[in-house]
Amino acid sequence: KTNIDCITSHRCLRLPGLIDVHVHVREPGATHKEDFKTATAAALAGGITAICAMPNTNPPVIDIDSFEYTKKLAQQSARCDYALYVGGSTTNAEILPEVGDAAVGLKMYLNDTYTSLRLDSVADWMKHFENWPTHLPIVAHAEARTTAAVLLLAQIYNRPVHIAHVARKEEILVIKACKERGMNVTCEVAPHHLFLTEDDAERIGLKRSKVKPQLCSKDDQQALWDNFDIIDCFATDHAPHTIEEKDSENGPPGFPGLETMLPLLLNAVHQGRLTVEDIVERLYTNPMKIFNLPEQKDTYIEIDIDESWTIPQLMPQTKSKWTPFAGMQAKGVIRRVVLRGEVAYIDGKVLAAPGYGKDLKEAQRQPTPGFQHRD
Amino acid sequence: KTNIDCITSHRCLRLPGLIDVHVHVREPGATHKEDFKTATAAALAGGITAICAMPNTNPPVIDIDSFEYTKKLAQQSARCDYALYVGGSTTNAEILPEVGDAAVGLKMYLNDTYTSLRLDSVADWMKHFENWPTHLPIVAHAEARTTAAVLLLAQIYNRPVHIAHVARKEEILVIKACKERGMNVTCEVAPHHLFLTEDDAERIGLKRSKVKPQLCSKDDQQALWDNFDIIDCFATDHAPHTIEEKDSENGPPGFPGLETMLPLLLNAVHQGRLTVEDIVERLYTNPMKIFNLPEQKDTYIEIDIDESWTIPQLMPQTKSKWTPFAGMQAKGVIRRVVLRGEVAYIDGKVLAAPGYGKDLKEAQRQPTPGFQHRD
Ligand SMILES: [Zn+2]
Ligand SMILES: [Zn+2]
Ligand SMILES: [Zn+2]
Ligand SMILES: [Zn+2]
Ligand SMILES: [Zn+2]
Ligand SMILES: [Zn+2]
Ligand SMILES: [Zn+2]
Ligand SMILES: [Zn+2]
Repeated sequence: KTNIDCITSHRCLRLPGLIDVHVHVREPGATHKEDFKTATAAALAGGITAICAMPNTNPPVIDIDSFEYTKKLAQQSARCDYALYVGGSTTNAEILPEVGDAAVGLKMYLNDTYTSLRLDSVADWMKHFENWPTHLPIVAHAEARTTAAVLLLAQIYNRPVHIAHVARKEEILVIKACKERGMNVTCEVAPHHLFLTEDDAERIGLKRSKVKPQLCSKDDQQALWDNFDIIDCFATDHAPHTIEEKDSENGPPGFPGLETMLPLLLNAVHQGRLTVEDIVERLYTNPMKIFNLPEQKDTYIEIDIDESWTIPQLMPQTKSKWTPFAGMQAKGVIRRVVLRGEVAYIDGKVLAAPGYGKDLKEAQRQPTPGFQHRD
Repeated sequence: KTNIDCITSHRCLRLPGLIDVHVHVREPGATHKEDFKTATAAALAGGITAICAMPNTNPPVIDIDSFEYTKKLAQQSARCDYALYVGGSTTNAEILPEVGDAAVGLKMYLNDTYTSLRLDSVADWMKHFENWPTHLPIVAHAEARTTAAVLLLAQIYNRPVHIAHVARKEEILVIKACKERGMNVTCEVAPHHLFLTEDDAERIGLKRSKVKPQLCSKDDQQALWDNFDIIDCFATDHAPHTIEEKDSENGPPGFPGLETMLPLLLNAVHQGRLTVEDIVERLYTNPMKIFNLPEQKDTYIEIDIDESWTIPQLMPQTKSKWTPFAGMQAKGVIRRVVLRGEVAYIDGKVLAAPGYGKDLKEAQRQPTPGFQHRD
């Protein structure tokens, strides 16, 4: 996988374009935090050529109208490829299947959240499990025992469920037990739960360190590393807020993460904690498989693998002018991102224009150009 | 089942001695609330000839020493038969199997509780599921989504679980879904969740109406009645406190219930909401089967079935000088309770002396007198 293909004599790593299945774009409704232009610029700068956008926007993506509206915004502004989630509410279980294949999956918020999407009652979860098409993924924000609870529904309804941002020992252990018994469960872990714990909260700042799931104990973190083979995907849960919002009383939870995920993971490769193959599996192969995403043709990223750097106070592309990883060691500089044959990012500059990004779920349903589509 | 067997011309109903699988005796540690003498007197007055005693005493029943200690207290003071639970803690999963068959089951407190027995992490639940003998029951206090969570463990570890005091629609629906898929789950419902809702809180008094699980909505209550065939057992969750404790700031949750359960259920029979057979199934046949209890020979109760009465401010036997059912309609007067051939209760008088009660789990392991026991 490592090729010397550059003029200068450094080791250059070429990887497929990475897929981040958990991104909060903040558009529509909170474009002072982030929007499709900036989120996808940050993605490209982080080696990510496709994002799956979460539905807890304003308006939330909870029916055909809000889905089409958000899709249009993405179409106009996204610089990298994308797919959109729909969100489960207490009232939309019957109408969501109409969006169906146009969405990358159904997102269910089963714990405290600030949006109208919170599903408190298992009776409401059951309605979604009964209605959402079985061939389309369900992604659950399901912390602690709620992981076990939603996996019971996966078992009862005999359908796959993907657990978002696994952070605790009890979560990874129950997922492991389900996998060992052949259940069709997958999961993702966010870089901040792999690389930060509650002990980092003071350094980050108590207010800024707020995130859901919260930063957990060293014991929880160790359990993630000890059960590394249970982790199917890495995903940023990129959740940008302005620095003023983060520093206010009762500020919102969430970290930006698109520009820092790959360098943090490559640093862990450098430390011998995982391999480059582990990264490709969790940010390319598995996301494609789990979310049934089409291949992005002629798409790859190039990284100067030996460069070491320290994460600065803020990253250049996101509107979120801070990062919880400031001061931490990173490895690898992303030099070039090629998306569908075009250089989308090079040496710190985002070249892909807003609107270059394609809806992966739409692309999937189009006939290949030049061929007759026959059913 | 209805025989005219009395001298006066009223209808007399003879039923087997009832079994209440969920009783808080309060001894040791809180005998000002209740003790084995009074709890078992209240049981007999309520037509109950066997109780299963919960382990959240002081000290809690969490190892061999506390089990033997509590067993001795029961042996000295119980007027009716009994069996004792052990409680799961964060540290006793490996030692509890030593108590094993001497206990009626393992009680796991998975939601907020006032004792040291609370199990917050699913990782701790898993330890108990791995260690507790598979032929012995696990009973879970598991509210709302926690019902679903613990049932996932039942599925993973392929063992029966009994859900205590089901109160909510989401709980009964998820249990129903599991039963429909052949899982080995059973459950109990308390009279206060069948006959009271949050709308009764004001009448009862806001402080006194505190109970766990809380009194729920009419919708929740209706779901219990709509799914009546999913309910395996009735159980009082008899949880006596003094009236002073109940009326204090932050008073403890819990209702007495031993003396009122059967008359409330018989009133529902009178209303056509269930049958006498439904009661026998849920307070005799199923408890015996689920908890593997031996038959109590020559044991039965006789009820004047046509008597109507209004539940008074307090019931005579429990130390708890109040009842949440005061003012409600009841049907049937328990005239006589015969326990192992002796009249244990007659016309308001408890005749069985403290110490007459037997440990059902010990009786089960004794050879039948007069026969040689051969293995
Ligand atoms: Zn270089
Ligand atoms: Zn290079
Ligand atoms: Zn989330
Ligand atoms: Zn998120
Ligand atoms: Zn009679
Ligand atoms: Zn309980
Ligand atoms: Zn209880
Ligand atoms: Zn009579």
